[in-house]
Amino acid sequence: MPSQFDPPSGTRDFLAADWELREHAFARIRSVFARYGFEPLVTPAFERLDVLLGKYGDDGDKLIFKILRRGEHEGTGEADLALRYDHTVPLARVAAAYGSQLPTPYKRYAIGPVWRADRPGHGRYREFAQCDLDTLGTTSAMADAEVICAVNDVLAELGLSGFRFLLNSRRVLAGLLEAFGVPAEFGPGVLITLDKLDKLAPGEVIAELAGRGLAENQAAQLVGALTADDAVEQIRDALKGSDEGAAGLDEVDSLLSLVAGQVPDDRVTFVPRLVRGLSYYTGPIWEVAAEGGAGSLAGGGRYDHLIEQLGGPDVPATGGSLGMERILLMLPQPDAVRSRLDVAVTVMDERHAARSFGFASAARNAGLRASVYLGSSGKLGRQLKWANDAGARWAVIYGNAEEEAGTVTVRDMTTGEQAAVPVARLAAHFAELAAG
Amino acid sequence: MPSQFDPPSGTRDFLAADWELREHAFARIRSVFARYGFEPLVTPAFERLDVLLGKYGDDGDKLIFKILRRGEHEGTGEADLALRYDHTVPLARVAAAYGSQLPTPYKRYAIGPVWRADRPGHGRYREFAQCDLDTLGTTSAMADAEVICAVNDVLAELGLSGFRFLLNSRRVLAGLLEAFGVPAEFGPGVLITLDKLDKLAPGEVIAELAGRGLAENQAAQLVGALTADDAVEQIRDALKGSDEGAAGLDEVDSLLSLVAGQVPDDRVTFVPRLVRGLSYYTGPIWEVAAEGGAGSLAGGGRYDHLIEQLGGPDVPATGGSLGMERILLMLPQPDAVRSRLDVAVTVMDERHAARSFGFASAARNAGLRASVYLGSSGKLGRQLKWANDAGARWAVIYGNAEEEAGTVTVRDMTTGEQAAVPVARLAAHFAELAAG
Repeated sequence: MPSQFDPPSGTRDFLAADWELREHAFARIRSVFARYGFEPLVTPAFERLDVLLGKYGDDGDKLIFKILRRGEHEGTGEADLALRYDHTVPLARVAAAYGSQLPTPYKRYAIGPVWRADRPGHGRYREFAQCDLDTLGTTSAMADAEVICAVNDVLAELGLSGFRFLLNSRRVLAGLLEAFGVPAEFGPGVLITLDKLDKLAPGEVIAELAGRGLAENQAAQLVGALTADDAVEQIRDALKGSDEGAAGLDEVDSLLSLVAGQVPDDRVTFVPRLVRGLSYYTGPIWEVAAEGGAGSLAGGGRYDHLIEQLGGPDVPATGGSLGMERILLMLPQPDAVRSRLDVAVTVMDERHAARSFGFASAARNAGLRASVYLGSSGKLGRQLKWANDAGARWAVIYGNAEEEAGTVTVRDMTTGEQAAVPVARLAAHFAELAAG
Repeated sequence: MPSQFDPPSGTRDFLAADWELREHAFARIRSVFARYGFEPLVTPAFERLDVLLGKYGDDGDKLIFKILRRGEHEGTGEADLALRYDHTVPLARVAAAYGSQLPTPYKRYAIGPVWRADRPGHGRYREFAQCDLDTLGTTSAMADAEVICAVNDVLAELGLSGFRFLLNSRRVLAGLLEAFGVPAEFGPGVLITLDKLDKLAPGEVIAELAGRGLAENQAAQLVGALTADDAVEQIRDALKGSDEGAAGLDEVDSLLSLVAGQVPDDRVTFVPRLVRGLSYYTGPIWEVAAEGGAGSLAGGGRYDHLIEQLGGPDVPATGGSLGMERILLMLPQPDAVRSRLDVAVTVMDERHAARSFGFASAARNAGLRASVYLGSSGKLGRQLKWANDAGARWAVIYGNAEEEAGTVTVRDMTTGEQAAVPVARLAAHFAELAAG
C-alpha cells in the first residue's frame, strides 16, 4: 500500500545494497566501453521543451515530463523545459553544439536516468536507467561491428549467458519487399505486420497482410519463405534479384565476418524477418534475445539521417541501447548479507571515546572500513550485536582490563576468537588484517 | 553567445574530459565515505511537490522546478511533482518510509545533482552536484566528529591543502547572548548581524546591533569580546556564567579532543563568532574555510529536530555538505592531453578489415583501450594523425608488406620507433605493453 512517504509513483529509492549492485554493473559497462574507445557524455536532466517535442511521435510527446515556467510566468501554466526522455536527442543537440570540437568519429556512451510518464508496472518505471553507445561520423561497417562486439562483451562481463544476437539490415527488408513484388506504398505497413511473426501464427500474419491490401497468395509466399526451415537460404536466393537486397546481404555478411572472431559463431544469427519497430534505421539492425525468449536485452542499428532529423548535423551514425532495468533484474543476486564495515570499534567507557575514535582511524588508514559505536548502550553484548548487524569481520574492544594491560582486544566476529594486541602494534595489526 | 544548441540556461553538457575529472573526484569521495561506514542513498530526481513545498522558506519555494501534471490534467497548468532541491528533505522522507529497515544509526551519503531555478552566474548553476553525509539516530559527539574527520579526509585526498575547520556550537552562541545580557527576543536577529563580522568593520556591526534595539554599550562589549586578540579566552571566561554556554563549551572541547588525533591541530579552530545562516542547527556547527578566504568549501552541524520538521521521525541527526562545484574548481587540472586510446589500429586495405578488427580485440583482451580506424582515408599519414589525436601510445599497421611477412608493425607514437611483431605473437606483445 503506497504511503505518503513512498517515492513518487514509478520511481524508486535505492538504498545501499540495491545501489551498489547497480553501480557495480554500471562500472563494468563503463570499463568495457572505455576499452573500445567510447567516451562518456553526460547531458543535463532537462532540455528546452522545443528540443524534445515532436521527436518521439504523438504518443511519445504525451509521456514527456514538462517543467512549469517559473517566477512571474508560473501562473501561465506553461512549460519551457522537459525531463530527458532518452539519450539520443541530447546527443544530436551536443553534436550540433560542439561540432568540430568533438573527435571524428565521435564514439560516446551515455548511462543515466531518463524519465517517461508511462503507466508504472512490473519492471516499468517512470525514472529508469538507459545505457546507449553510438558512433557518429562514419559509414564504416566496422563501426556497426564495434557496437555489437562491445554489447556482447558487456553482457558476457556481467555474467549473462545464453543470449543471442539477431542480425538483419533494413536494406535486406527493402530488397525482400521488392523481390516479392510488394508495392512500395504497402512497405511500411507490411513490415509492421511481419514484425509480429514471433507472436502470431503464420496464418494470422497472412490474414493481416491481406487486410493491408496484399494479394493473399503474395502474402502466403512471403510468409512461407520467412518461416520455412531453410528461410535464410530462400531469402538469400530471393534477394539476388534486387540491387537493394544484394547490398543489404553484403552489409549483413560483412558484419558477420567482422564479429566472427569476437562473438562466438552460435551467438549471431542472420534473421531476415527481424524488423525492429523504429522507422529511422537505414542499414544493419540487430537485437539481443535473452535465453528462453524473455524479451530483448539490447538492440540497435545504423541510422544515418536521424541526427539531422533531430536537429543535429547530417552525419552518419550507428549505435545501440541496453535495456538496463531488464538486464539488472537478470544479474545474479549476491546471497551473502551485505557488509557495511570491516572493523567495528566498541566504546565501553566514555573516558575512552577519543581512544576508540583513534582505533577506528588506524583501521581506516590501513584501508579498512571502520566505525566506532555511536549508540548509548555501555553493554558489550549490545555493541557486539551492532558489530554483527553491520557485517563487521572484527570488533575492537577496549575496556578497563585492556587499559591496564596496554592492549586492545581484537575479536574475530566469525569465529569468536580474540587476540590481545598491544596498542602500539595496532596499526601494524590492521595492516596485516587488510592484507590478508 | 547562447545558441539554440546550448544546454538550458544554468546547466552544462559534460564532455569526456570534464566528466572524468568530476567522476574521479566523486569516486575518491565515495571511497572515503565508505571507509567511515557511510552508505550510499540515491533518491529519485523528483519528489511529490507537497514533500518539498514549505521546506526551504518562501525564497526557496520560488526556486523549486515544478513539473506539470500530465494527460488530461496538463491543461490545469498545475504541478504535482518537483525536482530535488537538496538531499536533506529526501533523507527525511526515506527515514520516515523505511524506519526500522535502516541501520541504527543510519549513516548515509548522497552525491548527485540538485536543481534550483537560481539566476545562473559565475560558478552558480541550476543543475549542480551536492554531496552530503549525515548520521541519523545518535546524539553522540563521536558522530559529529566522524563527519568532520571524513570531510577532512575527503579534502586532503582530493589534493587540497591550506583549508581550515572553524568550529562552534549553537549552544555557545546561546550562552554568549545570555552572558552579555541580550534579551531573548533579540537573539536570532543579533546572531544574523554577528554573522557579518567577517565582512563588516566592528563599528558597522555595532551600529547594526544598535539598530536592532541593543544598547550601544552592550553591543560594543559583545563585538569587542568577539573581535579581541584573545577573543577565545574572553568568550570562554564569559561563558562560564551560563549553563547553556558551559554545555556548549563542553561540546566544542569534546569535539576538539575527538578530532585531535585525526585532523592536524592547526587545521581546527574554535571560532565563537561562527553562526552559519541556517536556523535549524541545535549543537556543534562547523565550516571549512578555503585558503586565502575564497569562501567556504563545506559546512555542517547537528540538527536534532530538523528531520521531524521535514516530515520524518523525531531522530537526532548531524551531518555536513561539501560545496562540490567550488571544490571541483579548485582541483589541480591535468595538463596532459587526455588520451582516449592506448592502441590505434590502422586499416590500410579493406581486405584487412576483419584482421584489423581482430588486432583491436587482442589489445582489448590485454586490458588496453583499442579501436580500429573508422574513417574513409586509406592514407597512413591521415590514419596516424587520427591515432595521435586520440592520444594513442601505439599504432598498429598492417599493410601488404606485413601481410607477406606475417607480421604486424607496432609503432610507438611518442618515439616513432616501429617493431615488427609476428601475428601469432601479437596477443603476447600487447600483454607485455599492458604490463608496462
